[in-house]
Amino acid sequence: MALSNGCACKIGPSILNADLSNLASECQRFMDCGSDYMHLDVMDGHFVPNLTLGHPVVKCLRPKLPGVFFEMHMMVADPEKWVEPMADAGGDMYSFHLEAAEDPGRCIRKIKEAGMKVGLAVNPPTSVQGVLPFMDMVDLVLIMTVNPGFGGQKFMGECLSKVQFLRDKYRSMDIEVDGGVGPSTIQQCAEAGANVIVSGSAVINSDNPRETISYMRHIVDEALQKASLER
Amino acid sequence: MALSNGCACKIGPSILNADLSNLASECQRFMDCGSDYMHLDVMDGHFVPNLTLGHPVVKCLRPKLPGVFFEMHMMVADPEKWVEPMADAGGDMYSFHLEAAEDPGRCIRKIKEAGMKVGLAVNPPTSVQGVLPFMDMVDLVLIMTVNPGFGGQKFMGECLSKVQFLRDKYRSMDIEVDGGVGPSTIQQCAEAGANVIVSGSAVINSDNPRETISYMRHIVDEALQKASLER
Repeated sequence: MALSNGCACKIGPSILNADLSNLASECQRFMDCGSDYMHLDVMDGHFVPNLTLGHPVVKCLRPKLPGVFFEMHMMVADPEKWVEPMADAGGDMYSFHLEAAEDPGRCIRKIKEAGMKVGLAVNPPTSVQGVLPFMDMVDLVLIMTVNPGFGGQKFMGECLSKVQFLRDKYRSMDIEVDGGVGPSTIQQCAEAGANVIVSGSAVINSDNPRETISYMRHIVDEALQKASLER
Repeated sequence: MALSNGCACKIGPSILNADLSNLASECQRFMDCGSDYMHLDVMDGHFVPNLTLGHPVVKCLRPKLPGVFFEMHMMVADPEKWVEPMADAGGDMYSFHLEAAEDPGRCIRKIKEAGMKVGLAVNPPTSVQGVLPFMDMVDLVLIMTVNPGFGGQKFMGECLSKVQFLRDKYRSMDIEVDGGVGPSTIQQCAEAGANVIVSGSAVINSDNPRETISYMRHIVDEALQKASLER
């Protein structure tokens, strides 16, 4: 499965608030509930004030979930460092932060050479202008809707202007939102033009994760259809 | 369970080469095979060139293994940073590297204030003299017998002179060895005076982990008894 097949809705649970001591079965549970991919939050305690998991965990996870698309969300200080280990571990997409990369173009080339798709992420304070020089080289842009580091944070609606700005320019680009996205905020995200949806707490704490995912997919699909008719 | 009850033999598997996507059941398996505690390898990709897992994983693991002693082996650049989160996550002992601490005494005080036992670790190139000023303040000294970062490395026997040096001075101190320790190297470790044994690959790759643990315990117990008779 690829994320970047035109501009379809994709829902990917973040594992940040999942049971990390049983990650394989947790991921399987989310996939069984209708997720399209897994969003794996890698934090090194330097780029963000939290330390989660690295490529050795992904390498163990890979054979348990054959065929599941792994987006590696690299919240790390030196993203180039982990490209090879993550490709070797079985990552499918490597999403790194513009703020962390010394030379984003070089990092993108490394990721492609390693055989992975490329995601480019920006934090709330970062201007969307920064991603424009790289749009032809990446498969997905990830607009953070919280300051990364922890799950369960409050959604920052003001970040959606970046999504809107990019969607106006790039009709078929995969644009992902991450942070505080759930049933109460999905409508705004969809209307702004996001089609790839990371949802952590809202899915994990849901009494009915399947229904939560299905509801979010419905809202995004509706917005995508509307936008396609208006084109 | 405490590690520091005199100078008994304790065997703790390192999780580095275990199935990290099923950590709870892996740890349970090792405890069922006769381990005394779990040695949890925390790497941040800065102090060592590997990124494993952090306190969010430990927090998920804690309720699955109630009563199991968790030694947190903090191979991280700024060990003071994770004292509170690790105590909150359920760590029992916080073993940090002398090489990484800006002010080891302050770090030790923080760990104690947070209610954890203190381990002080030194890498192969670090002189054992560096730990001497802190011996009255720590519960355990960890002598690395490989350069930390990866599992399955070759044992560096020359590091055992540090164990011997400390054992001659401190008869009842807990002295731990970590790196390449298994059935073929345990005798040297035990004779040098190590009583707390981290074993990764040798236990994890064993056809019979229970027997491997039991064999290592036998060798260490024998050496401890011999040393106690000679005293």
